[in-house]
Amino acid sequence: MTLDKFFNPKSVAIIGATEDPNNITSVVITNLIEMGFTGNLVPVNPHHDEVFGLKCYASLLDVKELIDITVISIPSGLVPEVLRQQARCGIKNAIVLSGGFAESGHKGAVLEEEVKTICKEEGIRLIGPNCIGVLDNYSNFSTSFLPWTKVKRPGKGNLGILSQSGSYVVSMMDMLSLEGIGVSKVVSYGNRVDVGESELIEYLTDDESTRVIGIYMESVDDGRRFIKASGNCTRSKHIVALKAGRQDSGIEAAKSHTGAIAGKYEIYKAAFKKSGIVEVYGLAEFMDACKVLSMQKPAKGNKVLVLTNGGGFGVSVSDLCGDTGLDVAPTPESIRDTLSKKFPEYFILKNPIDMTGSSGDEDYGTAMKSALVNNDFFDAAIIIPLMPPHTMTEGVVDIISQMSKESGIPVVICMVSGVYTGEIKKKFEEKGLPVFPTPERCVKAMSVLVERGRMNG
Amino acid sequence: MTLDKFFNPKSVAIIGATEDPNNITSVVITNLIEMGFTGNLVPVNPHHDEVFGLKCYASLLDVKELIDITVISIPSGLVPEVLRQQARCGIKNAIVLSGGFAESGHKGAVLEEEVKTICKEEGIRLIGPNCIGVLDNYSNFSTSFLPWTKVKRPGKGNLGILSQSGSYVVSMMDMLSLEGIGVSKVVSYGNRVDVGESELIEYLTDDESTRVIGIYMESVDDGRRFIKASGNCTRSKHIVALKAGRQDSGIEAAKSHTGAIAGKYEIYKAAFKKSGIVEVYGLAEFMDACKVLSMQKPAKGNKVLVLTNGGGFGVSVSDLCGDTGLDVAPTPESIRDTLSKKFPEYFILKNPIDMTGSSGDEDYGTAMKSALVNNDFFDAAIIIPLMPPHTMTEGVVDIISQMSKESGIPVVICMVSGVYTGEIKKKFEEKGLPVFPTPERCVKAMSVLVERGRMNG
Repeated sequence: MTLDKFFNPKSVAIIGATEDPNNITSVVITNLIEMGFTGNLVPVNPHHDEVFGLKCYASLLDVKELIDITVISIPSGLVPEVLRQQARCGIKNAIVLSGGFAESGHKGAVLEEEVKTICKEEGIRLIGPNCIGVLDNYSNFSTSFLPWTKVKRPGKGNLGILSQSGSYVVSMMDMLSLEGIGVSKVVSYGNRVDVGESELIEYLTDDESTRVIGIYMESVDDGRRFIKASGNCTRSKHIVALKAGRQDSGIEAAKSHTGAIAGKYEIYKAAFKKSGIVEVYGLAEFMDACKVLSMQKPAKGNKVLVLTNGGGFGVSVSDLCGDTGLDVAPTPESIRDTLSKKFPEYFILKNPIDMTGSSGDEDYGTAMKSALVNNDFFDAAIIIPLMPPHTMTEGVVDIISQMSKESGIPVVICMVSGVYTGEIKKKFEEKGLPVFPTPERCVKAMSVLVERGRMNG
Repeated sequence: MTLDKFFNPKSVAIIGATEDPNNITSVVITNLIEMGFTGNLVPVNPHHDEVFGLKCYASLLDVKELIDITVISIPSGLVPEVLRQQARCGIKNAIVLSGGFAESGHKGAVLEEEVKTICKEEGIRLIGPNCIGVLDNYSNFSTSFLPWTKVKRPGKGNLGILSQSGSYVVSMMDMLSLEGIGVSKVVSYGNRVDVGESELIEYLTDDESTRVIGIYMESVDDGRRFIKASGNCTRSKHIVALKAGRQDSGIEAAKSHTGAIAGKYEIYKAAFKKSGIVEVYGLAEFMDACKVLSMQKPAKGNKVLVLTNGGGFGVSVSDLCGDTGLDVAPTPESIRDTLSKKFPEYFILKNPIDMTGSSGDEDYGTAMKSALVNNDFFDAAIIIPLMPPHTMTEGVVDIISQMSKESGIPVVICMVSGVYTGEIKKKFEEKGLPVFPTPERCVKAMSVLVERGRMNG
């Protein structure tokens, strides 16, 4: 059985639908309308005849047309009854946004068990409860109940996000929009009574629009299945995981949060390694790893060229490469010979190649051509084009991008974020070159490409 | 002798002045005009009669008026002669922007020695060579030769920046502007033949407009003096240091960059500790440490309240607190009792206090009042107000800010960066509450306040 209907339903019943702006169903519906969702929307609520101009039904049992999925946002105590109704109508899929289940104490936990039993008995597939649900950026379907005015919807891309935490999913969408990183599918599965990350990874492995999967997890649904699904997935795609609940303090918090038994962290660590998953430890690192893997390919080795017009950045990046096991290998004699004929005496040719503040656009082309295109010594390159000197113009974007292509190796850009540099960053990323705003984030991103290269063999 | 004339000169001779946009003196002059520098600008260049409408002199020897300082940007070989001329004119201060000294090989090193000797013999104080020089945001004096259109000038503030690397200074200004962090004075001293960080620290210790000093260093000018000056400074102010050249790869790069012998890193580490300096390892961390110290006071202990409406963030922040030695101490019974009467059953009251996505502005006030204002159990607080729920409005800024003031403890905000949240971030920071865009950066910033508190206490 496939999860397709969760992402691309033809008809959706919104249970509890209302126009009341304080009720989240009103946001779900207005979001869908704003996104241009072309499927059929069917509001269900005994208190209304019409919602946002759509005919509203008193009960699911009154709906004549075929419904692919229900989106349920009603007090938790009423959820079991709705699920039973939808079973009678032959509706096989549900996304339960409502909270008030295991996360809220004993009574909720009992209710959650009931929901689980109904799903099993009736063959209903369910995402949630206590979640944001889904966003499919290609079908324009979403159950997010946060207005797109407050949380900007990210553009289309090849990144899929899976998360136990709703707040993480929302924050990630916000950050991804601002960063200009596109997503394919997003799933917040909350208390995970049925559909969980393992099955979603299996599904996304076959999803053409997804190339990289980023997961925020506090616990795992099924360890064995997770390792098998991930290991299979990472043969052709990439998975990045942020495991929350590593420290005692975090494990305690996770237990309160989603009722998750976070488990022994070391076991997760070993499972990630075994499955070819890149583990990260922070939100920016998560974003950066997803971004670099979605834009560049893994490196074949760890010999990295560092090329810059700012000496201080060369020093910092070299330090950080040392910290993360990247080899700032000395520039081979042959390359130095070639470059010494083309460059002024005061350019520093050992790695880092520091062309000083008096270099310009064309010098980047010259250095990259000799060091990377006509030579296969380096496995990857970190390019740090500082823009302030008047000799540096946006023309450098085309030059670096062209040489990167010709080199055939992964290239990442370090460029601090300012007002003017923000514009240049955009241009680099339009050309497929990921830009990171600090030496530490840039080196970390490169180390992800090297790590993935090593895993692949 | 004081360094005042470097920051607030009444009259400045620009040696090598021209309107040629490819010559950096033209940028220095236009920058100064744009900043509204009110001192006297005196261009010196035998090839021009007038530069930007200012009378231009063939030689320093022709200038009749009193000159406080020269700004020298001419080929390095001509610098010694100009220094001798200025000595004859009784001009006691110079900033040499020109490169072509020790960083460029043997010939340059000899020239640099000559410059050093002249300074000693003639009693000339010199910043540089091979540097960006200074920015004083209160006197509106700067020798930066990067146009403010490409590198936005940061606003006025209490942060002083000292750096051996010019590219770091420039990048930092760009980042600080974007972040809205204000600076007092910035000094890039490059090859440091005379004025170095130790003396600058002594100077800034007495500078009323500076509260926090951030230093990028590859090497130290005078170890003993540095420790003494820093130790003295950190009794009333804060110093944050980023030491580049820690790893073999970085030490090699530093040697090529500023000719700096980076020295044994462990010695620096010990010196920083001894002097009350906060050491950081990356550019973002540098910015964040400077920012948090300029906006909040050190914490008296390590017991941190974590308050949020997003459970996942509570978990992550708890993990990271565990990583950095912050104690997410369980909420005392008395506070839990009080809050359990005011809050719905499903709010989680142990630390982190997770008020879930259904809480709103006022709940933040309620929680902070009970946990922080009417109780002195916690030493500090990390507040994570996620804005997407409709119950969260910008009104939360005033509430959190008011409670922070009443609590008397340091408070930092974690708020991911998106389009809408960017606006709220600004409002928080206008109220003096620093906002950090990820759990990891927020916890790290808080750990700086705890570390400084421990040092002082």
